[in-house]
Amino acid sequence: MTATSAASAAPTASPETFLQACRAAISAGYVLTEDADTVGYLTDQRGRYTGKALAVLKPGSTEEVAAIVKLCHQHLVPIVPQGGNTGLVLGSVPDTKGNAVLLSLTRLNRIRTVDPVNNTMTVEAGCILQNIQQAAAAEQRLFPLSLAAEGSCTIGGNLSTNAGGTGVLRYGNTRELCLGVEVVTAQGDVMSSLRGLRKDNTGYDLRDLFIGAEGTLGIITAAVIKLFPQPKAQVTALAALRTPDHALRLLSLAQARCGATLTGFELMSDFCLQLVAKHFPPHRAPFDKPHAQYVLLELSDSESEAHAADIFEAVIGEALEQELIDDAVIATSIAQSKSLWQLREHISMAQAHEGKNIKHDISVPISRIGEFIRVTDVLVQETSPGCRMVTFGHLGDGNLHYNVSPPEGVKDTDFIAQQEKINRTVHDSVDKFGGSISAEHGLGALKREEILRYKSPVELQLMRTIKQALDPHSLMNPGKVI
Amino acid sequence: MTATSAASAAPTASPETFLQACRAAISAGYVLTEDADTVGYLTDQRGRYTGKALAVLKPGSTEEVAAIVKLCHQHLVPIVPQGGNTGLVLGSVPDTKGNAVLLSLTRLNRIRTVDPVNNTMTVEAGCILQNIQQAAAAEQRLFPLSLAAEGSCTIGGNLSTNAGGTGVLRYGNTRELCLGVEVVTAQGDVMSSLRGLRKDNTGYDLRDLFIGAEGTLGIITAAVIKLFPQPKAQVTALAALRTPDHALRLLSLAQARCGATLTGFELMSDFCLQLVAKHFPPHRAPFDKPHAQYVLLELSDSESEAHAADIFEAVIGEALEQELIDDAVIATSIAQSKSLWQLREHISMAQAHEGKNIKHDISVPISRIGEFIRVTDVLVQETSPGCRMVTFGHLGDGNLHYNVSPPEGVKDTDFIAQQEKINRTVHDSVDKFGGSISAEHGLGALKREEILRYKSPVELQLMRTIKQALDPHSLMNPGKVI
Repeated sequence: MTATSAASAAPTASPETFLQACRAAISAGYVLTEDADTVGYLTDQRGRYTGKALAVLKPGSTEEVAAIVKLCHQHLVPIVPQGGNTGLVLGSVPDTKGNAVLLSLTRLNRIRTVDPVNNTMTVEAGCILQNIQQAAAAEQRLFPLSLAAEGSCTIGGNLSTNAGGTGVLRYGNTRELCLGVEVVTAQGDVMSSLRGLRKDNTGYDLRDLFIGAEGTLGIITAAVIKLFPQPKAQVTALAALRTPDHALRLLSLAQARCGATLTGFELMSDFCLQLVAKHFPPHRAPFDKPHAQYVLLELSDSESEAHAADIFEAVIGEALEQELIDDAVIATSIAQSKSLWQLREHISMAQAHEGKNIKHDISVPISRIGEFIRVTDVLVQETSPGCRMVTFGHLGDGNLHYNVSPPEGVKDTDFIAQQEKINRTVHDSVDKFGGSISAEHGLGALKREEILRYKSPVELQLMRTIKQALDPHSLMNPGKVI
Repeated sequence: MTATSAASAAPTASPETFLQACRAAISAGYVLTEDADTVGYLTDQRGRYTGKALAVLKPGSTEEVAAIVKLCHQHLVPIVPQGGNTGLVLGSVPDTKGNAVLLSLTRLNRIRTVDPVNNTMTVEAGCILQNIQQAAAAEQRLFPLSLAAEGSCTIGGNLSTNAGGTGVLRYGNTRELCLGVEVVTAQGDVMSSLRGLRKDNTGYDLRDLFIGAEGTLGIITAAVIKLFPQPKAQVTALAALRTPDHALRLLSLAQARCGATLTGFELMSDFCLQLVAKHFPPHRAPFDKPHAQYVLLELSDSESEAHAADIFEAVIGEALEQELIDDAVIATSIAQSKSLWQLREHISMAQAHEGKNIKHDISVPISRIGEFIRVTDVLVQETSPGCRMVTFGHLGDGNLHYNVSPPEGVKDTDFIAQQEKINRTVHDSVDKFGGSISAEHGLGALKREEILRYKSPVELQLMRTIKQALDPHSLMNPGKVI
């Protein structure tokens, strides 16, 4: 952090000396160096990439994390922190230099305290998201962060990437769900800001600087997260409609009528549901004929299921009358509701079954989504004639998974060769629409170069200044973000 | 930001040379140097303090702000940014050295765009909060930030202090209401991050670093703020009860029953309402006999007034049955609702009419508020026997205005002499309860020394590191925050 600490750091005499010191700090059993033990940690979620590391270290407490980071700082050993290793942008695996340690937070898995009156929970970074959801439910509370990897991702990873998911419309991103953090700085100091306060204006917002920094400024070891009252009922509906612009108008109507009870608003094109029906035959849209677009709506009601269903019927009646939608079903049982959500949840898998595809996790201002899709679809067709758009996502947040599958009959390898060209087309268009090329996945190593094209020089310079100030030796997750 | 820019800066040859350059940059009419013109800007809101400045500068655009900051950087002239000058902690007035300029943002008062579909508005820093509320209402939208000074405070000040107010329970602090900012850095560069995106994970959270920094890291010149659907109805109730602990249990019940429609939950002790009744006689609690504590509840409903009233009746019925409350009224007209709110809104003025008082803007975890009041009341009595507690505030946010009036018959001057001792007692107790000594007012110059006692050395060091990195010459609002 200061010139003094920089001067005191010196490269390690030998990696073995360093590893011996690590074994002394956290016990030898948690210093993994055999390939068989480490490969799972060093390979990314999709199996695309395997990095190298001096060792995988598994400290068991914040103090042990701090001890390891101090050793790394002293020996100038880079650190790659990792939670559940479910990230999609190569943010939690090391590069192939082999000079870094991988620091797994999974042993820091205690729920330290639950305070149902304050509506907060203090959790360690390695807690699995689903376990946190369940611990909240046991106290009749809701922790609303929800995403596909919830059975294996950790809250430390969710915080470090500011994860999104399906509840953002009502509850915000992970950033908005956190009141305080405990962080081990790049120097190995412990910053403990675990105050469960809704209001605290006593200086710079250090919390939000570490949230979303993907471990490049320090290591989040624990957090105070926000809980909410459990809704009495959740009701789901599926609306069929003509265009994304109609979906936008439906969104405005539903927000006006439902306020904060509208907790989900997901767009899916007909082609998405065609793929689902093809690869997972029992799952199909519950309408007589296909429609161009579908919207999945969810209400979370604090009164009753009957009340939620009444509201939905009124909204859908009004939407039919205004010709915003052409048809709709409201789930009248939990089973029906699940089956509607499964349409949405099977899209990614169906797309994978169809073959290789090129994914984009983008956001634009909500009001511009219709125009963005129209304009960008044309540009992508010019770039890669015949390719098929798999467009779906969190319309209520302006966040689309704007994915591209190859034209029928085109080989995967021929298609993937076009990846860079297609990415450029999509990202340039996103930029023109004032959007983001990474809405909820982060930058990691994958989009680190890409962002240089789209972020302003002033923003990049501020990011570099902060990185340099907090981590002058560039030891924290090097090669990621900046 | 860099060593190079540091090296290029040199003290001004003479203040007059510098002021000439300012006149050239923003036109002479907006460079105020006469005492009669500047005194209003240099005196704090409460009239306690008047600072000195080389000049008051009133740029008319972001570019002019940048030009001024570049000149200040070049001539090493400190800058004190100011919005509506309604702050309570001496954060927007200069010290008495007279070497700084006061930079008023009030001419940057355009609402640049409103996007009702994206539910966003792009506003300049000098826009008055009430004007923003009205512009939102004109589009059938709600901008929910609401506080006593809304008729004269500016959104730039609200952002720079992360203002709170009465809507935090449902909508969050100003931080949570902002999607993007435009900032002039300490070097005079313009960082334009005015993207109206709900999700954007492409690097460090620069936005939140400038929000709440009280102008010590850069100057916020514009922002994209979030709008919400306007509620169909707002209904108010006043509950009478025995202790703050009963109020807490009522809060949990109301949150479970009302979810996000509960938008206000304000605690007021009987003594607060006694003062209001004494100094503003028409305003009194609408009950036959006094009760120890009162809670003002507000529901914002997206259906109808009748629906909101039904929910309130159910909650109040249940609370009476559980003996959480002893009595309650639900306002059945807008006039009744206003008169209930006026009880709350007259407390500060009533307290001022009663004489000098010592104010504390504190927060603790919501679950600990009852215990905090019990314990701290005893400590304050030991410190200043006979003094009278004026305790009220945003209970739903854990934020109390924990104010102290002198014992009856004690002279103001004798009482104010005890200020430091009483502050110490209260703040030490807040700290023991894991709370904050500035929940919504910021640090400014007033609490800058005080926070050194309560913030951890690691947090303070991180704040200093960031300040040094972004503003190496300490030109941005010197003497504030850190």
